[in-house]
Amino acid sequence: MIDKGRVTLPAEEGLETKIANIIDRWGADAVRDSDGTKLTPEVKHMASKVYSKYFFTRGDQEWAKANPDERQHFYLMSEPITAHSEKVLIPIMKGYFDEQVIPDTDHDIKKWWEVIDRTTGEVIPTEHWTYNEETKEVAIYRVKKWHIYTVNFLAYQLWDPVHLYNHVTNQWDSEHHIPYDPRYPKTRKHILDNLKTWLDDHEDTDVVRITTFFYNFTLVFNDAAEQKYVDWFGYGATVSPLALQAFEKEKGYKLRPEDFVDEGYYNSPFRTPSKQFLDWIDFQQRFISELAKECVDIIHDYGKEAMMFLGDHWAGTEPYGKYFKDIGLDAVVGSVGDGVTLRMISDIPHVTYTEGRFLPYFFPDTFKEGGDPVGEANQNWLQARRAILQSPIQRMGYGGYLSLALKFPDFVDRVEEITDEFREIHSNSKGTNAYKAPFKVAILNSWGGIRKWMSHHVHHAIWYKQCYSYYGILESLSGMPFDVDFISFDDIKKHGIPDEIGVIINAGDANTAWSGGKAWVDEEVVSTIKEWVYNGGGFIGVGEPTAYQSQGRFFQLSDVLGVQKETGYSLNTNKYNTLYDKNHFILEEQHTPINFGEGMKNVYQANSEAVVLDMDDSDVTLAVNQFGSGRSVYIAGLPFSPENTRLLLRSMYWVASQENLLKKWYTSNVQIECVAFPEVGSFVVINNSYDTQQTTVWKDNGSKVDVTLEPMGYKWFEI
Amino acid sequence: MIDKGRVTLPAEEGLETKIANIIDRWGADAVRDSDGTKLTPEVKHMASKVYSKYFFTRGDQEWAKANPDERQHFYLMSEPITAHSEKVLIPIMKGYFDEQVIPDTDHDIKKWWEVIDRTTGEVIPTEHWTYNEETKEVAIYRVKKWHIYTVNFLAYQLWDPVHLYNHVTNQWDSEHHIPYDPRYPKTRKHILDNLKTWLDDHEDTDVVRITTFFYNFTLVFNDAAEQKYVDWFGYGATVSPLALQAFEKEKGYKLRPEDFVDEGYYNSPFRTPSKQFLDWIDFQQRFISELAKECVDIIHDYGKEAMMFLGDHWAGTEPYGKYFKDIGLDAVVGSVGDGVTLRMISDIPHVTYTEGRFLPYFFPDTFKEGGDPVGEANQNWLQARRAILQSPIQRMGYGGYLSLALKFPDFVDRVEEITDEFREIHSNSKGTNAYKAPFKVAILNSWGGIRKWMSHHVHHAIWYKQCYSYYGILESLSGMPFDVDFISFDDIKKHGIPDEIGVIINAGDANTAWSGGKAWVDEEVVSTIKEWVYNGGGFIGVGEPTAYQSQGRFFQLSDVLGVQKETGYSLNTNKYNTLYDKNHFILEEQHTPINFGEGMKNVYQANSEAVVLDMDDSDVTLAVNQFGSGRSVYIAGLPFSPENTRLLLRSMYWVASQENLLKKWYTSNVQIECVAFPEVGSFVVINNSYDTQQTTVWKDNGSKVDVTLEPMGYKWFEI
Repeated sequence: MIDKGRVTLPAEEGLETKIANIIDRWGADAVRDSDGTKLTPEVKHMASKVYSKYFFTRGDQEWAKANPDERQHFYLMSEPITAHSEKVLIPIMKGYFDEQVIPDTDHDIKKWWEVIDRTTGEVIPTEHWTYNEETKEVAIYRVKKWHIYTVNFLAYQLWDPVHLYNHVTNQWDSEHHIPYDPRYPKTRKHILDNLKTWLDDHEDTDVVRITTFFYNFTLVFNDAAEQKYVDWFGYGATVSPLALQAFEKEKGYKLRPEDFVDEGYYNSPFRTPSKQFLDWIDFQQRFISELAKECVDIIHDYGKEAMMFLGDHWAGTEPYGKYFKDIGLDAVVGSVGDGVTLRMISDIPHVTYTEGRFLPYFFPDTFKEGGDPVGEANQNWLQARRAILQSPIQRMGYGGYLSLALKFPDFVDRVEEITDEFREIHSNSKGTNAYKAPFKVAILNSWGGIRKWMSHHVHHAIWYKQCYSYYGILESLSGMPFDVDFISFDDIKKHGIPDEIGVIINAGDANTAWSGGKAWVDEEVVSTIKEWVYNGGGFIGVGEPTAYQSQGRFFQLSDVLGVQKETGYSLNTNKYNTLYDKNHFILEEQHTPINFGEGMKNVYQANSEAVVLDMDDSDVTLAVNQFGSGRSVYIAGLPFSPENTRLLLRSMYWVASQENLLKKWYTSNVQIECVAFPEVGSFVVINNSYDTQQTTVWKDNGSKVDVTLEPMGYKWFEI
Repeated sequence: MIDKGRVTLPAEEGLETKIANIIDRWGADAVRDSDGTKLTPEVKHMASKVYSKYFFTRGDQEWAKANPDERQHFYLMSEPITAHSEKVLIPIMKGYFDEQVIPDTDHDIKKWWEVIDRTTGEVIPTEHWTYNEETKEVAIYRVKKWHIYTVNFLAYQLWDPVHLYNHVTNQWDSEHHIPYDPRYPKTRKHILDNLKTWLDDHEDTDVVRITTFFYNFTLVFNDAAEQKYVDWFGYGATVSPLALQAFEKEKGYKLRPEDFVDEGYYNSPFRTPSKQFLDWIDFQQRFISELAKECVDIIHDYGKEAMMFLGDHWAGTEPYGKYFKDIGLDAVVGSVGDGVTLRMISDIPHVTYTEGRFLPYFFPDTFKEGGDPVGEANQNWLQARRAILQSPIQRMGYGGYLSLALKFPDFVDRVEEITDEFREIHSNSKGTNAYKAPFKVAILNSWGGIRKWMSHHVHHAIWYKQCYSYYGILESLSGMPFDVDFISFDDIKKHGIPDEIGVIINAGDANTAWSGGKAWVDEEVVSTIKEWVYNGGGFIGVGEPTAYQSQGRFFQLSDVLGVQKETGYSLNTNKYNTLYDKNHFILEEQHTPINFGEGMKNVYQANSEAVVLDMDDSDVTLAVNQFGSGRSVYIAGLPFSPENTRLLLRSMYWVASQENLLKKWYTSNVQIECVAFPEVGSFVVINNSYDTQQTTVWKDNGSKVDVTLEPMGYKWFEI
C-alpha cells in the first residue's frame, strides 16, 4: 500500500463533491488556483496545502496606469529598409503589435535610440535623423543609396506578453496587464507593500506560487498578434534607462542599444554571448535575486512557503545562476514538457523541493471531442518517468480547469495510475540516488552551467527542425545513468577539465553558442581539450562540433574527431571514405538504419586511422577515432529515440574506455531501461514503449534476470 | 548531299585498308596519332591534313635526366601533425608518391620552406627546425604542445602527372617522363631548339598538336598512386625559385610558400582568390604566352598550323586570359565532356577554328565486352549538340585506338550518323549566329571572365556531389539562346554592369569563389547591383547566393532576393513561410516535383512581399521577389535536366521582365529545343531524349508548327 500525497490539483468553484473524489483517487494533498479560477474555503479544507498564484509586476493595473513612466521596456529593431533615395523613412512600428509596445519618447531618443547603416555597421550621427511621433517614422537624411538602415528604439510595454498570449489564445476579453518595473524605487516599494497586503488577505494560503518575479522572458508579437520573437531564456524585458545607468555605474562602461538589439538577433541563446551581454546578465541577476530575496523573506515572515514558477517572469532568476541560492526559495515548480524540462526542474539546487506540472493542461485544445488527453498524458509520462528516476522531482501536479478533465473518465483513471506510480518511485527509492556510471558527462558550449539543460532550445520543449537533431542528446541524457555537467569554454580556460569528467560532448551547428564558434581557435581551449583526450578522455562531437574555419580546418579538432567537413575549399582533394567495422561496439544494438535526423552533409574521414561506422551516400555520419589514449565519436545528428539513446549510451562507455562497465543495470531490449537504487537495494525496470516488451536485465554483479512488461509498464525488484 | 570533312580520325599502323573505309564513311579529312600510335606514310596520304602531337616539356627525357636542377616543382604541404611533446617529427613525404615528387634541397630550405603552427598560423623561426634528408623528416623544437604543425616544402617533380596517370591507368611499363622547366634559360633554349629539330623531322605534319605548352595543371598523387589533389585550372606546377625571384622583381613584393600552399587548399578555384594568387596568375600567363608565341612563330615559320590541346600542360594558357590572343594559335582542340566543356572550347576567341574530341575514347575501359560505346556516344552527342548549335566548334574528332572501335560495327554506324549531322549543322547554319535573346546573362563570381565556363568544376566534366546542383546551371545555359558573360566583383567595381546584361546569376556555396564570400560586404558591389536590379535588372540566386554573415544577414541581398537563410541566430524569430502562386509564370511547365539536387536547407521568406513558389518541408526552395522595377528568383539548386533547363529559361525571361519574348523559337515539349539561324532563314528542332517526341514550335512571328521527332532526332526547316 502506497501513501497518498505529492500531488497538486487545480481546483475550481462549484465542483466540491467531485474534487473530494478526485483528491482521494489521485491522492492530492495540495490544491491550487489557476488563471481564471478561485478556491472556495470548502476546497481549501480538503487538502493539506493551498497554493495561490502571485504576480509581482502585473498584478496591480491601477498602479500600472497611474505610473506609465515606470512601465517595463524592450529594445526593438525596426524592419530593415533599403535606401532608394537620399532620404529614408522608417516606420519603426511596422511589424510590431501596437497593443503590446509603444516607442518611448519620454527618454531622450537621441540618447537612447540608435540608427544604424546595416550595410557598413556604422551608427548614423543623431543630427542626421529625426522622429515623427505622429507617424512613428524615423527620417534619415543624407543616407547612402542602396544601403540598409534600421532603428534601434526603446519601447514601453503596454501588455504583459504572457497575459497577451493567454488573452489571444483563449480569446479572453479582459483589461490588458501592463508590466511595471521594480528598477524604479517607487514601484519597488509598491511591490513590497502590495505583497504584504496580499499576504494579509490570503491567510489560507500555504504556498505562494510566484509567477514569477519581475521580468518576463522575451516575447514580442507581430502586427497580426502572432509571436514574432520568443526567447524563453531572454533578457529583453529587463532593459530600462535606469538599469542602463546603474549598469554603467557598476560595471564601469556604457552599453549601446545595439548591445541588446544585436543586429536583430537580440542575443538569442544560439549566439555566442558577448561580454556585454554576459555582464548584463550578471548585473540583472544580482539585482533581481536581491529584490526576490526581500520578497521571499516577507513571505517567510508570514509563515508561508515561497515557490517559484520556472517560466513567465523568470528573467534573471535562472536556477543555475550564481545568485539563485541567495533568494531563499522553498520550491520551484515548472511545466514538464519532456525529460529535459523535467531535469531542468529536478536538478535545481538550493530548494527544499521541486514540483512538475504535467501535460496535458486541462484546456479546451486537448479536452474536446476528438482530443486525446490519455495519449498526451502517456507520452508525457514516459518521457518524464525515465528522467524522474535519474533525478526526481518531489511533487507533481496538473494545471487548467478540472471540470474539463472530469469529462474524460479514462483520463481520470490514467492519472490515478500515474500518480500512484509516481509515489511508488519515491516510496521505493526512499530519496536515495539512482546508480550512475563512474564518470561524469560534460556538455561543452558557450553558456556552460548557467544554462544547464537549456541548450538547443528556443522555447519550452517545442520541436524545431534546426534543434531536434541536437536536443535528442539532452533528451536521451535526461534518463540515462550519468551525472551531467554543462561546462563553458571559459570554465575550461579557468579551471581546466575536472577529474570526474569522463566524456565531453560538443554538439551544434557551426558558429552557434552550442558548437562554440571562435572558441575553437582559442589555443588554450583546444590545447586543454586535446591534452585531456590524449590522456584518456572521451570526446563526442555531433553535427558541426569544434567548427570554425581557420588554418585549413573547419572542424578544429579534426585530429581528435578523425573527421572533417568539406566547405568547398578542399573539393580538389580526393576523399577516400570507406565504411568499416559494421560490428563496432557502439553499433551492437543498431538493427535498423540509424536516424541521424537532419544529419550533416559533406563530412569525410580526415585521417586514415579514423574508422567510419556509417555513411549516408558518400558522407560520413558516424565515425570513431583514437587520439593518444583517448577516443572520440562523431555523430551527424541524434534525434531522441530508444535506439539513439542506446547508441549514445554505448558511445559514452566506449569513448570513456569503460566498455566493461556497460552492462550494469543494463537491458537487452532498447525499449526498456533499468534504474537501480543500490543504497536501498531495489531496482526498477521500465517499458518506454506502447507494446508489451521482454528483456534480459544485467545486474551490477553480472547476474541476469528476464523481465516481461506490459505496455508502458514497470516492475520493481529487490537487488 | 552534304560535304565530307570537319572530322579528325585517330589512326594506327596496320589498319590501312580499314582506315580508308572509315575515312570515307565518317568523312574524315584529317588523321592524328595518339599516345602509343604512329602514322604510316600510306595513312598520311589518305587525309588532307596530318596532326602530330608534341610535348614541349616532357618530350626529351635525355635532357631531363642531364639537368635535374631544371626539373619542374610543386609546393607541397606535409600532413598536419599534432604535437604531443616538446619536439615534433614531421615525415614530410607521408601521403605523397615518392615516384612523383622528391623534396628539393638544392635550394636553401631555410629560405624556400616554411614550417607553420596551424593552431595559430604563426611561422616557426627557421632556427627552431631542422631537416633530415635521410629520413625526410622535419624536426621542430620548442613546439607548443597540442598545436598542429605543417611543413610547406618545395619538391621536384619526378614524373609528369599526366604521364603518370596514363601509366598507372593503362598499366604501361615505360620510362617515367620528368617535366623540365623553361623558366631556366638553358632549358628554354633547348625547348626551342628541340622544336625546330622535331619540325625538321616531321615534314608530313600539317598541324602541330601541342599537348600543351609547359606546365601541367595541378595533379598530385598519394602514396597509393591514386589522385590526391587535382585542380584542372591549377598553377601548382608553375612554381620555382627562379620564377619566384622574377615575380619579386616584376611585382615588387615577395611571395611566401604559404601563398601557394594556402592552408593546404592550394588556391583551389573554390577559394576566393587572394591578390597574391591573382598576381601570380598574371605573372605566369605573361611569361607562358610570350614563350608560347615564340614556339608558335617557329611552327608558322615551318608552314604548319599550331593547335593547342585544352588540358594537360595548359596552366597559364587559359583561352579567356588577357594574354592568350598574343600567342597566335591557329586552333584549339579539347575533350568534349558535355555542353559546358563544349562551350569552353567553342567560345574561345582569337583562333581560326576549334575542334572537339568526342567521347568515348577508343580505350579498353569502354570498348570491351559489356561496354556500351554507342550509349556513351549518344549521351555525349546529345549534350554537345545543343551547345554546338548555340556556339559551334568547327571540327570534331575522336581519340584512342581505332582498332578497338572497329570491333563495334554499331558504333561505327552511329559515328557515321553523328559526323553527318555535325556537318549538316555547318552546311545549314553557314557559319551564322543562332538566334539569341535580346539580353545577355552574366554569371557573377570571384573569377569572372578569365574562367568562362569554368566555374563549379574540379576536373574535366566530372560529377561531384557538391557541384552538380550548381553546374547544372552552366550545362543548361550551354545550349540556351543566350549570350553568356562571366563577370567578377572587380569587374563590377571597375566598370559597373554593362547595359546589354539583362540577368545576373550568382550561384554557389557560401564563402566559395562562386558565391563570392566577402565581396558581399563590399558596399560598392552591393550598391551597384541593387541599383541595377531596382532599375529593372534581373537577379537569379542559386544555393547560397550573396552569402556572408554580417549585420544581421547571411544572404546580404535578402532585400533583392526576398529570402534569407537561417544560420541559427534567428531561430528565435518566428517564420511564416507560405506556399503561394503555384501557377506562376516560371512554373508553367513543371508538371512533376522540381529536382533541386542537393537543395538548400533553412531558407525562409525574408519579407512579406516575396512569393514562395516551392518548399521542401518547411524550407523555401523556390521564390520570386520584386525589387523596385527589377525582379529576382531564388532557386535552392539546379541540376541539369530538360525540366530544370526550362525552369531556368522561364526564370530568365521573367526576371528580365521580358515574358512576352519567351515564345520565339520555343517548344511546347521540354525534351525538345529549337534553334534558329535567322540570317540564313533556317531553324532546327532537336530531340534531346531517347524517345519519340512531339512538340509545337513557336516561330518568332507567333506562327506555330507541329513537329514529331525520332529518338535523338532532328529536323531542319526553312523559316
